[in-house]
Amino acid sequence: MAADPRLFTPGPLTTSPTVKEATLHDLGSRDQRFIDTVRRIRARLVELCGADPAEYAAIPVQGSGTFGVEAVVGSVLPPGGKLLTVENGVYGARIAQIAGVLRIPVERLVGPEHLPVDAARVAAALAADPGITHVAVVHSETTTGLVNPLPPVAAAVRAQGRSLIVDAMSSFGGLPLDLRALGADFVVSSPNKCLQGLPGFAFVIGRRSVLAASRGQARSLSLDLPAQLEGLEASGQFRFTPPVQALLALDRALDELDAEGGIPARAARYRQNHQTLVEGMSRLGFRTFLAPEHQGPIITSFHYPAHPRFRFQDFYERLGRRGFVIYPGKLSQADCFRIGTIGHLFPADVQALVAAIAAVLGELEIPVPLERA
Amino acid sequence: MAADPRLFTPGPLTTSPTVKEATLHDLGSRDQRFIDTVRRIRARLVELCGADPAEYAAIPVQGSGTFGVEAVVGSVLPPGGKLLTVENGVYGARIAQIAGVLRIPVERLVGPEHLPVDAARVAAALAADPGITHVAVVHSETTTGLVNPLPPVAAAVRAQGRSLIVDAMSSFGGLPLDLRALGADFVVSSPNKCLQGLPGFAFVIGRRSVLAASRGQARSLSLDLPAQLEGLEASGQFRFTPPVQALLALDRALDELDAEGGIPARAARYRQNHQTLVEGMSRLGFRTFLAPEHQGPIITSFHYPAHPRFRFQDFYERLGRRGFVIYPGKLSQADCFRIGTIGHLFPADVQALVAAIAAVLGELEIPVPLERA
Repeated sequence: MAADPRLFTPGPLTTSPTVKEATLHDLGSRDQRFIDTVRRIRARLVELCGADPAEYAAIPVQGSGTFGVEAVVGSVLPPGGKLLTVENGVYGARIAQIAGVLRIPVERLVGPEHLPVDAARVAAALAADPGITHVAVVHSETTTGLVNPLPPVAAAVRAQGRSLIVDAMSSFGGLPLDLRALGADFVVSSPNKCLQGLPGFAFVIGRRSVLAASRGQARSLSLDLPAQLEGLEASGQFRFTPPVQALLALDRALDELDAEGGIPARAARYRQNHQTLVEGMSRLGFRTFLAPEHQGPIITSFHYPAHPRFRFQDFYERLGRRGFVIYPGKLSQADCFRIGTIGHLFPADVQALVAAIAAVLGELEIPVPLERA
Repeated sequence: MAADPRLFTPGPLTTSPTVKEATLHDLGSRDQRFIDTVRRIRARLVELCGADPAEYAAIPVQGSGTFGVEAVVGSVLPPGGKLLTVENGVYGARIAQIAGVLRIPVERLVGPEHLPVDAARVAAALAADPGITHVAVVHSETTTGLVNPLPPVAAAVRAQGRSLIVDAMSSFGGLPLDLRALGADFVVSSPNKCLQGLPGFAFVIGRRSVLAASRGQARSLSLDLPAQLEGLEASGQFRFTPPVQALLALDRALDELDAEGGIPARAARYRQNHQTLVEGMSRLGFRTFLAPEHQGPIITSFHYPAHPRFRFQDFYERLGRRGFVIYPGKLSQADCFRIGTIGHLFPADVQALVAAIAAVLGELEIPVPLERA
């Protein structure tokens, strides 16, 4: 197999060689070493978001990140419950879609993709509908790269006594998240984003009292969150076969997060990656989709160049041949591509990507700096 | 980390070093190499069960094997459908449990754990209830190690025009399975059993026409089988983040299955493993739970020795310290433990296990051959 490309994507992403090598073991799912690994991971995840382990538990859920979100929505919304989704992108919309498939009543608060969600609108929607029991919001909306301000949304939800679910899929470990201050009941994320582990499961950090009160109401056997927690707490084992190697990878990845200096240091590196990217792309004449004040460091959307010789698929493949994988756009309103700056990537990698982009534009005889559309 | 134990379990199990090393890559989920890998795996899985790719498609589903079973049951039972579960163990019962959680009407045909399911009873149950639309049966019941005879059950289901779902979780790749002859609509299995890949997803081989007719009726977004198939066929990509490394492992594991001589050769090795085990254990005085004519080569249940110094947990841990992991029992009727003989294990490994068991009995001063209870 050829050398691996550098993945400037929101995941699966580039991980360190040592994270991957940590998976070169077969352990039985009842093996004490494996049980200890799972226990250690769960404790560290709770710690990483500043939660009290007496109040919150971390629950790994087999499958992709979406499986984790569905496990929360399908397990904790009681019969008669109603969900408000606060949306400004595809991942917010997906939470509403999950509720729809599960036949859970859902109210959608849809805002424009280029602006943060509006806590005042959340407050008004909750005041207008006392039947809403839960609110779900995405922290870092991968559609654009926008980071939604959680504290005002959480305050609006707390003020009206509803339960908050935070989809922190692409932000957990890469941006600070203070669960104690937010008072959210559930945070969902993935080991294969800012934690720099491998894909294979999602995890939920949930309030124990709410989980205990949710027993028996899950709409799925596989995605039954309280049952998953009970299994893990009773025997340390998963109810169903765990992705052993992906758990070994996360255990190692958490060591590497500590070694880097924890979330503050990682967040600083991602910001530096992002700044290096924006500065370099700006020199080439690319424009970001978002205003800088709404832009997070995880992934950045750039407008297509206006030049007639630019075709995204061709551009993507030429970069791929140079060893750089970028990401297509997912916007409804504008032609954009996306570049992720998370994973085991450093400012020098970002500089190399920008140089490759410049070289590809040269191949295509598209003059830089690009002309404004 | 200490050397890995040999896993005499039904999975996660011992895989070859080369299967694990095949995962040491990060590939983007939209990367052409990854898309080609997934396409190759899907084609080979259809081929392995003798199905026509124009009629059947293979669909990987993120999560454990149970997620795959739930994806089938929750996606293909129409509103107004009714499932008959033909059970002689925990895994058959689990299918009924899935239907119960999904509020799908289910009729349970429960037979004793030590006997194969009875095709005549299936025929009678179907004749008595024309409302039953689907029948689910487990091929190799891991509870005991019993292999259910599929052809007569499939014939009974076909004769009455119902749809058959086969849970071949622990048998696929280790026992022949001729989907063309059976005419089943769905087979579910795992890469981490007889195919000797890693855990992280399940796969379903399903009849295309039935999947097409099932669109839009799934009871879950994550486990929507027709939607998963449509995504894979439209772009070659998963709808949601795939466990990239587990797919790379299966691709390599399928090469190694070919190199071994395909399913016949692997089945022969597993039979040899099983015979070596039963002969060795029999010399020590252990008795199998099942009569030999019902026993499959995948996993074998042995009665506890009657000796008062035998305690399973202690026995298990002493074997673990010698590098051998066995499996506890799961029977309702008898005190048994289980020993799996699948994975990257060979008759010499089984002989080493039997020698370790003899040595542990010696440590415990339990005389061999064991006395009959």
